Amino acid sequence: MTEANDDMTPLLPGIDSPSDLKGLSDEQLQQVADETRAYIIDVIGEIGGHFGANLGTCEIAVALHSLLESPRDKVLWDVGHQAYPHKVLTGRREELPTIRKYKGLAPFCSIPESEHDIMGAGHASTSISYALGLKEAMRNGIGEDGKVVAVIGDGALTGGVAYEAMHAAGGLQTPMVILLNDNGMSISPNVGALSSYFQRARLKPGLFHAREEVEDRLTRLPLGLGKRIERLGPELKSAIKAYWAPGLLFEELDLAYMGVIDGHDVGAMRRALTEAFAADRPVVVHVHTVKGRGFAPAEEGGLAGMEKWHAAKPGSIVDGAPAESKPKLVPVQESDAPASIAPEILEKPDPKSAPPQYTQVFADALVSEAASDPRVIGITAAMAGGAGLQKLADERPDQYYDVGIAEQNAVLMASGIALQGGKPVCGIYSTFLQRAYDQIVHDVCLQDLDVTFAMDRAGLVGDDGPTHHGAFDIAYFRSLPNVVAMAPRDEAMLVHMLRTAVEHEGPAALRYPRGAAVGVEIPGRPELIPVGTGETLQNGETVALLGYGSGVGVALAAAELLEADAGVKPTVADARFVKPLDTELVERLAVSHDLIVTIEEGVLQGGFGSAVIEHLEDNFANPGERARVIRIGLPDRFVTHGKPELLHQEVGYTPEAVAEKVQAAVEAGLAPRH
Amino acid sequence: MTEANDDMTPLLPGIDSPSDLKGLSDEQLQQVADETRAYIIDVIGEIGGHFGANLGTCEIAVALHSLLESPRDKVLWDVGHQAYPHKVLTGRREELPTIRKYKGLAPFCSIPESEHDIMGAGHASTSISYALGLKEAMRNGIGEDGKVVAVIGDGALTGGVAYEAMHAAGGLQTPMVILLNDNGMSISPNVGALSSYFQRARLKPGLFHAREEVEDRLTRLPLGLGKRIERLGPELKSAIKAYWAPGLLFEELDLAYMGVIDGHDVGAMRRALTEAFAADRPVVVHVHTVKGRGFAPAEEGGLAGMEKWHAAKPGSIVDGAPAESKPKLVPVQESDAPASIAPEILEKPDPKSAPPQYTQVFADALVSEAASDPRVIGITAAMAGGAGLQKLADERPDQYYDVGIAEQNAVLMASGIALQGGKPVCGIYSTFLQRAYDQIVHDVCLQDLDVTFAMDRAGLVGDDGPTHHGAFDIAYFRSLPNVVAMAPRDEAMLVHMLRTAVEHEGPAALRYPRGAAVGVEIPGRPELIPVGTGETLQNGETVALLGYGSGVGVALAAAELLEADAGVKPTVADARFVKPLDTELVERLAVSHDLIVTIEEGVLQGGFGSAVIEHLEDNFANPGERARVIRIGLPDRFVTHGKPELLHQEVGYTPEAVAEKVQAAVEAGLAPRH
Repeated sequence: MTEANDDMTPLLPGIDSPSDLKGLSDEQLQQVADETRAYIIDVIGEIGGHFGANLGTCEIAVALHSLLESPRDKVLWDVGHQAYPHKVLTGRREELPTIRKYKGLAPFCSIPESEHDIMGAGHASTSISYALGLKEAMRNGIGEDGKVVAVIGDGALTGGVAYEAMHAAGGLQTPMVILLNDNGMSISPNVGALSSYFQRARLKPGLFHAREEVEDRLTRLPLGLGKRIERLGPELKSAIKAYWAPGLLFEELDLAYMGVIDGHDVGAMRRALTEAFAADRPVVVHVHTVKGRGFAPAEEGGLAGMEKWHAAKPGSIVDGAPAESKPKLVPVQESDAPASIAPEILEKPDPKSAPPQYTQVFADALVSEAASDPRVIGITAAMAGGAGLQKLADERPDQYYDVGIAEQNAVLMASGIALQGGKPVCGIYSTFLQRAYDQIVHDVCLQDLDVTFAMDRAGLVGDDGPTHHGAFDIAYFRSLPNVVAMAPRDEAMLVHMLRTAVEHEGPAALRYPRGAAVGVEIPGRPELIPVGTGETLQNGETVALLGYGSGVGVALAAAELLEADAGVKPTVADARFVKPLDTELVERLAVSHDLIVTIEEGVLQGGFGSAVIEHLEDNFANPGERARVIRIGLPDRFVTHGKPELLHQEVGYTPEAVAEKVQAAVEAGLAPRH
Repeated sequence: MTEANDDMTPLLPGIDSPSDLKGLSDEQLQQVADETRAYIIDVIGEIGGHFGANLGTCEIAVALHSLLESPRDKVLWDVGHQAYPHKVLTGRREELPTIRKYKGLAPFCSIPESEHDIMGAGHASTSISYALGLKEAMRNGIGEDGKVVAVIGDGALTGGVAYEAMHAAGGLQTPMVILLNDNGMSISPNVGALSSYFQRARLKPGLFHAREEVEDRLTRLPLGLGKRIERLGPELKSAIKAYWAPGLLFEELDLAYMGVIDGHDVGAMRRALTEAFAADRPVVVHVHTVKGRGFAPAEEGGLAGMEKWHAAKPGSIVDGAPAESKPKLVPVQESDAPASIAPEILEKPDPKSAPPQYTQVFADALVSEAASDPRVIGITAAMAGGAGLQKLADERPDQYYDVGIAEQNAVLMASGIALQGGKPVCGIYSTFLQRAYDQIVHDVCLQDLDVTFAMDRAGLVGDDGPTHHGAFDIAYFRSLPNVVAMAPRDEAMLVHMLRTAVEHEGPAALRYPRGAAVGVEIPGRPELIPVGTGETLQNGETVALLGYGSGVGVALAAAELLEADAGVKPTVADARFVKPLDTELVERLAVSHDLIVTIEEGVLQGGFGSAVIEHLEDNFANPGERARVIRIGLPDRFVTHGKPELLHQEVGYTPEAVAEKVQAAVEAGLAPRH
């Protein structure tokens, strides 16, 4: 199935829009799906990108677009990383090799990119709500009427908002289809009760419409036999379970249920979907797919294989098989691996030649914290690999929880652990932690609980783009009482800061970027950093570069440029904490320099630089008596996808851009303090 | 049941801690519950406060505390407004009359208030996660082992995080009890599929352990009879549904289920709970209670009665019955009514003597918008009354959705409606909208969708306290790209701004405080306010008071004080928008005054004042060339509960405090611009 049958004329080159699928036979459509899969294996194997999920959705995309009239009918892909086949079939086949590249196709669905991308989402579990809103709007006569289908994975169903939406759809009896793409995986293997629920359901792939058939047969029998059930034995129970179980969860929410259907059989899905779209109520169509379908190392590698091939590295597949020689080692600073790939399966670079990933440093440090204190408990939300908790899971499974795609529950569960005297560490990407904002405010900070947030992927994450950039956490954490918020400038400081956060009794948050660390020695024994203290790294004059997190590296490099090119030797300092701010340091810099440049990898509005100017404005009755502040950081817009270096250039978050701004300010004439 | 039996010696005066319940008979415990209820009716009827839910939980509190050893065992109350009986039984009986008052008992559970208040929560749906965290910590040997029970209402179960937690508890098989307090209400009647699910379950109050009993009987029958089921008719289906239905939703998540139990029968609950606590797995104990139990107007008034008596006004109950004469009309500026009471059941003050509530003005304006444009759709999350959408629900039900306690779905559903060309307006309290932060970032702002957020209760809400204050929305909305964020200074501007937000194509947010508006005439025809423009209200010199939202009223009053007492006539301006900021206005004020005072009812870190100084710092190369900025707003701590006037005094958000600060700055000598 990995390649189109050579005996047949290829069909995919003729599919430039969904309308080209109309009139094809089930067999031809199956062939289109096969060719789509082969094409994706070829392209993504070469350039890298989300992989496994997309091999699972080829038939789904073909079945849906052959039946529906997109974009009048709405096909919604929950988390667009399963939507590559959809992109291929909706006029973007030839652009697929540009996916996730700067100015290329977006990594997920993107509303501006195509009229067929109805919604945009990089975070899971949202599509049922969107479908509900779209269809209810149609029912209210808004826009053109059409059919609506949300394609959602079993992993995404662990997110509570999906349940909120099913609950609402059941209550409103909104005519829409929820296509449950059940591959038994989210990115890591699914956890929790829902997982075993689907496991049971998947064992019965012949159950398509079994309930209705049984009921039909039963209703044709003479009445009055019901009384006999009390005389029946345990077989009754099993029989009932077998007939009723797969859809019960949904039926209890007043959603009709059809399943389980082979998600790689275009014809079977077309028949089921035709019926589902004709119903005047919400219908769950449960299909079973294989993540990594058609690519043996993923399909046959079990859970490990599927997790490994969630995303593929560039050059990792040649002629439909894993590349024999290792793909050439790209410089780790480029952070070329897809953001969602588990770090332990990255090529481990030679430690002498390149620094480790921040994720790996965190993973080691967390295990070390957990080993020295049994109260330390790591919690992740379906991102054990990416967020660096897999090592803890392997080595100290008792001190580890993966709650699934359920960030709210992760943070609340941490609150409960803290109340019992534990020291929970939530390892969650900056972007995903946004989901638990209210829990951070209302349950951790307001209750002043001893929860640590370790935010990986803080700043611009690169290929995954705007849905995944960690741009807002500095600003929102800073606005909350009781929390200590910090960011390490390098991997040594990350180790110290994790120690500091765990030791600190109360809410603490640390953020660090995606990709490779700086290359300093990692301390054998972490030290406590005094809360609220920064550090001066280099003394200079006139200009002070004050970095936060990755901004410190930018500051140091900018200082070198300025000294070499402009004859300015700036002071360089690391704020270390945005909350509490080292106000002594800030004041000292302000009275002994004419210009302070703050540098942070987060939005400027309300961010770290804003904290600095708030403090100076509050504490200098005469603004003329202190240095002017120029703030460098992320702009007030959503930043696109692409290699971090390109994005950093685009937004001016580079040593060169900083040096240029400083030079311009110096040349324009800095107002002397008076 | 509303009063203790006069023939019996009262028992409640002897209950000073849960240990005093030990050794009492079921009858005596039932009497304690009755007396607790009578006491709450007396006290809350006199002083006002959450009411209906607490009358429903008297027996639950007695049953739990008679069985458990609190605080070693953990009793968690989901949303503390059902926890008054718990407070009465845990040593706070005599302080109950101080509840919700400044420096009195907290309105919800409060960790610092009592060792028996294990968690604190004013937002719903969090308790199962807390229970999970507590028990898993115990299983890891952290702290003392004990039993854990989460008491959660059926309304709170509509929140997705409760489902995330059940899913995790089922997966981990955590031994804990979820006591489902099912009264068929959240605050407004429940909506959605779960509601009808419980409705069906409630019809079978004799179903306690029905499943197990049936299974027991079935397994004792000779084998081999299972085959016969195929010959059975529709009775099979009904019989199965009757036996299996109540607990299926939970059993499918691998939670054991017991129910439905009479939640007003202490003995029945004690028997069920004893069994549940002995189980080595998560158990849902489903009890049915009556909201407003023992108070006829609530209990017998149907849904309207229950919603009306969710909270009681001060002086509204005398001798266990509604007060005959209307309670005296308290000045509306005091906003004395509980925050959660539906505004339409407030005393409507004489329009000539007092201004309307902001909520009412919004309610009318929204209906007017909806009437003139069928694309306008109002969405609320279980707060139709409080958030001002009930009028829309009554008058234009097709343009109205209540999704239950499910803010995430509310915002996503709005996104779907917007994608279809609708103009959704999410009417959600500032504090509750925090739950949808990620949806605001990732789905509304990033996708640039035409969703309006109308945030009632922005600022300090008063009696409900820190869980309910709307303190953070200015800061977090300001940090997000694409959104227009504004706040009206009075009710006329609210009408204009709602018009402006609906007309604006893209995300828009407006915030307005709880309580009475200012008393200006409400325009018959709303006008569009040019986006990003402020307004100068009064020209003066030296000092400019720049307000945002309710800060404008503070500014105007402070200006009067300053003119009268200090001979300073300040300029007063209304910023109207925090994003985009009226930068022309800000610059004009900055170059023509020596001092700008920004005034906002939100946290200062990253807030409106921060936006002003960011702009000035960016645009004045020499800080000495512009006015100094002093920021007035909420402090960097969580503010307690109490009447808004008291809280405003405490935090210095009053005209007097502003005038004082200005005078001090003037007397200290303002640095002249140069």
